[in-house]
Amino acid sequence: MTTTPSTADHIASTVKVLAFDIFGTVVDWHGSIVREMQALYPAVDGDAFALAWRAGYQPAMARVMRGEQGWTLIDDLHRSILDEILPRFGLAQLSDAERRHLNHVWHRLDAWPDSVEGLTRLKTRFTITTLSNGNIGLLTNMAKRARLPWDCVLSAEVFKAYKPSPETYLGVARVFDLQPEQVALVATHHDDLAAARACGLRTVYVERPHELGQARPKDGTPEPGNDLHATGMNDVARMLGC
Amino acid sequence: MTTTPSTADHIASTVKVLAFDIFGTVVDWHGSIVREMQALYPAVDGDAFALAWRAGYQPAMARVMRGEQGWTLIDDLHRSILDEILPRFGLAQLSDAERRHLNHVWHRLDAWPDSVEGLTRLKTRFTITTLSNGNIGLLTNMAKRARLPWDCVLSAEVFKAYKPSPETYLGVARVFDLQPEQVALVATHHDDLAAARACGLRTVYVERPHELGQARPKDGTPEPGNDLHATGMNDVARMLGC
Repeated sequence: MTTTPSTADHIASTVKVLAFDIFGTVVDWHGSIVREMQALYPAVDGDAFALAWRAGYQPAMARVMRGEQGWTLIDDLHRSILDEILPRFGLAQLSDAERRHLNHVWHRLDAWPDSVEGLTRLKTRFTITTLSNGNIGLLTNMAKRARLPWDCVLSAEVFKAYKPSPETYLGVARVFDLQPEQVALVATHHDDLAAARACGLRTVYVERPHELGQARPKDGTPEPGNDLHATGMNDVARMLGC
Repeated sequence: MTTTPSTADHIASTVKVLAFDIFGTVVDWHGSIVREMQALYPAVDGDAFALAWRAGYQPAMARVMRGEQGWTLIDDLHRSILDEILPRFGLAQLSDAERRHLNHVWHRLDAWPDSVEGLTRLKTRFTITTLSNGNIGLLTNMAKRARLPWDCVLSAEVFKAYKPSPETYLGVARVFDLQPEQVALVATHHDDLAAARACGLRTVYVERPHELGQARPKDGTPEPGNDLHATGMNDVARMLGC
């Protein structure tokens, strides 16, 4: 879109590893949770429930990063937030087994319709890895179910730091013994991309207008700081010559 | 072979994750290094060179685990050992770039002929992950080149401990939120399997008679402690109903 072909060519020839944000970028957390709630607890407003659950996520990670809580897997943060919001949605009576099952919805998120095809195309030319705050088990279970063809599963769990900490972005470069500019982050969140860019990584924005649901379209205006701006995962593949 | 069908059935129904040793079990390090030396430095005895390089591996890890050296990736241990043995093989004159390239032979190891097929079969029923002292970048590059279809890439690098430390075997169970007996280690080394068994994991021995070269067949006598004893990777798949 705003990108000149030469930027894409330059990235295609210098970048070796594409690291992907997961929640929102590769999988549709909002739609998946709405569908799961509709099936399990149809009386609950699934849209409000999904948003409330996700809203607890950043504050929970911030508490860990400030040192108020030891290192915690996202599965456990998701569970704390779930326990906190259930009464608000009339589900205070859920058993531990029911809560455990519901919490694992994050392992069962559906991919956006273009993710598997786009990733499969990109994998022919690049090493493709997750770079998510989700834990390794969650990401692996998700990939197996949704058939996401990762070469590698990197997570905050490996670096003991959550994005947007520099340890995570620079950690990818270190794991693959590369310079930061040989790694690109692919994400639908400008704050994630800005933090990666500050570490010297290349950045690819992917439009996911319905990350927050059909009723709440996201502003997809290109940020000039990103190297590439794509309308979806197949568009990333197209721009990078795959 | 020595295994009753019921043991295999029990494992097939309780185990969720198969963790694979890599060097020797999935890939042929000796043959690959011999072939690479033949191509690059044909005057060198590739067999002796491969054995000398590998012989430095356990002592180097032991120094790290005794705390005499900080946490070190296998790529860096391989490089130290390489620098040490090169003069002995008349290769003291190799440049840094040549040493770096040669050191990366460990990223370019060939799979045993049955590995990709056996793993692909096992992947239909189990989550399959590496559990290697090799670092994540090495394992990912190797898998991409040799087309090893891992669901997940776990390494000593994730646990900051090498096998046979309990942290590695129990680490796999923790990553997937499983009990140790829901994880099986697949390996061609009895010491690795014994350490996993001591942590409560299931164990599958795979015969790799030529791990040390055609001229030096390994003793493949079944150890009664292992749950399964397989003649190769397709035999593991067959026993586990894949």
